Amino acid sequence: MPLLGLGTWKIPREQTPALVETAIRKGWRHLDCACDYGNEREVGAGIRAALTEDPTISRDDLWVTSKLWNTYHRQEHVRDACLRTLDDLGLEYLDLYLVHFPISLKFVPFETRYPPEWVHDPDASDPADRVMVHDPVPIAETWRAMEQLVDEGLVKNIGVCNFNVSLLTDLLATSRVKPAVLQIESHPYLSQKHLVDYARLHQVHVTAFSPLGSAGYVEMGWTKRTEGAINEACVKAAAQAHGTSPGQVLLRWAVQRGTSAIPKTTKVGRLDENIDVFGWTLTADEMSAIDALNRNKRYNDPAEFCVGMGGPVPIYD
Amino acid sequence: MPLLGLGTWKIPREQTPALVETAIRKGWRHLDCACDYGNEREVGAGIRAALTEDPTISRDDLWVTSKLWNTYHRQEHVRDACLRTLDDLGLEYLDLYLVHFPISLKFVPFETRYPPEWVHDPDASDPADRVMVHDPVPIAETWRAMEQLVDEGLVKNIGVCNFNVSLLTDLLATSRVKPAVLQIESHPYLSQKHLVDYARLHQVHVTAFSPLGSAGYVEMGWTKRTEGAINEACVKAAAQAHGTSPGQVLLRWAVQRGTSAIPKTTKVGRLDENIDVFGWTLTADEMSAIDALNRNKRYNDPAEFCVGMGGPVPIYD
Repeated sequence: MPLLGLGTWKIPREQTPALVETAIRKGWRHLDCACDYGNEREVGAGIRAALTEDPTISRDDLWVTSKLWNTYHRQEHVRDACLRTLDDLGLEYLDLYLVHFPISLKFVPFETRYPPEWVHDPDASDPADRVMVHDPVPIAETWRAMEQLVDEGLVKNIGVCNFNVSLLTDLLATSRVKPAVLQIESHPYLSQKHLVDYARLHQVHVTAFSPLGSAGYVEMGWTKRTEGAINEACVKAAAQAHGTSPGQVLLRWAVQRGTSAIPKTTKVGRLDENIDVFGWTLTADEMSAIDALNRNKRYNDPAEFCVGMGGPVPIYD
Repeated sequence: MPLLGLGTWKIPREQTPALVETAIRKGWRHLDCACDYGNEREVGAGIRAALTEDPTISRDDLWVTSKLWNTYHRQEHVRDACLRTLDDLGLEYLDLYLVHFPISLKFVPFETRYPPEWVHDPDASDPADRVMVHDPVPIAETWRAMEQLVDEGLVKNIGVCNFNVSLLTDLLATSRVKPAVLQIESHPYLSQKHLVDYARLHQVHVTAFSPLGSAGYVEMGWTKRTEGAINEACVKAAAQAHGTSPGQVLLRWAVQRGTSAIPKTTKVGRLDENIDVFGWTLTADEMSAIDALNRNKRYNDPAEFCVGMGGPVPIYD
């Protein structure tokens, strides 16, 4: 897996094809997608445009990740969800398919709404359907269906997002095909050292989402632009020392500690900047100073953002 | 379940029979035990002495909890471990049997060492055996064996300790016999509001261990006597207002928020004090002030205390 990937969450559909095409032409080889992001068809268009434009790049040069949404955890829905994602992306296989959350919601048929998002039916007359409707499915059941996707060749690797140490331990004990990747929120304010070390010990590669920290959450009103590790003095000092941007320091920190990172951007200039984190190294002191910024600050927590949708889902508590 | 139970962890074997006997005579009806505490035979002696001395108390008046140790998670060991506990306690059934930790360690036969504790073989010539040896077992496998204990009538209820929201969610989705109780560390510095609320929503009763906070950990050198919620001004003020001790305020706070609590003591006077938390009520303001003390401070964390035994076991990360 290329250590830097383009995060596609919140890239508006209309911008997505051109941005993905440009990213691939600029050297990005790893795309992080999901059913829930609502733009897989447009990501697919971008991939096709790039491969058509530059015949020296083949599908096999790319690493494409997608994610199984919460409404498809039942054994009988996993394969259909994967096929829908493959069809939208225009691909024969995924490099990696992840369980998006350890949260199982009631099934919503494709023809009713796609992507289904969190709330069961936003237009329902019954208020009980205008919130999340949980539908308990054992993770082991979902995982058996994920394993069958590997058997069938639809996906090369499978993994999970937003699992903690205990869930990962149980999954490792339960699984025939081991999870290859754990994708979690991680940045210097949420370094998750124990979890990252634990995953590494068990040969599970860690991908950090929101590697730039607060950046992606300002527009959602979940934090302020002045907040976040990117504003810390030691990050700015390292950036100055290496002639980079503070954002590049955060991405370098992520890859230097052995995680991959999937920054999102809609700005073409940032595509150049964000991938330029190789060929230079943060010093041990710089790494330590950034490590020390950890404050267990999580921006993306369904214990908070699900409150208005029928209750907190405190998966990290 | 009586809301107050006597915690038996760290009660020295030689003091245990008399203390348990005295506790029962003083009105304690709930005993919290575990294989790992190494004193179940002595707890059993205390129970027998109390029931012999006062024939108006019967076995059925007591609530006795015990816990499955980490080395017995495999299907084929659960029943034997339960039978051993029953034999030590001199009981025909347990009121509650809990999975002690979501941690599965390599089996140690009874005749080799009982209780086995954490390290696989403290006297081994091979250093790899002088540490913890993990043996991955799916929680679902252990739980199926726990369910069979209920079917067989050996235990009335089953539950878990030290599970977080995500593990509990998966267990609820997997189980035929639902967990009746979740036992977790909880005190005003670690109120675990999300987890307690989540368990309640799913009809899982919460028992708080270490309800007095730091008290049990001072002797182990894990904290200082001056540290802990028991020293907080709002706790002392509530104690003064109600003519109680600060410890009684912490226990009252625990039961008033709907959890049971299992304080340990080896002091006979404390048996009177700790159970005297009924018939009076903390005001809403007092409850709020104590709620506000939360600082997610965990005293009992295998991410810390297992470091010297072969690595952290960061089950809460």
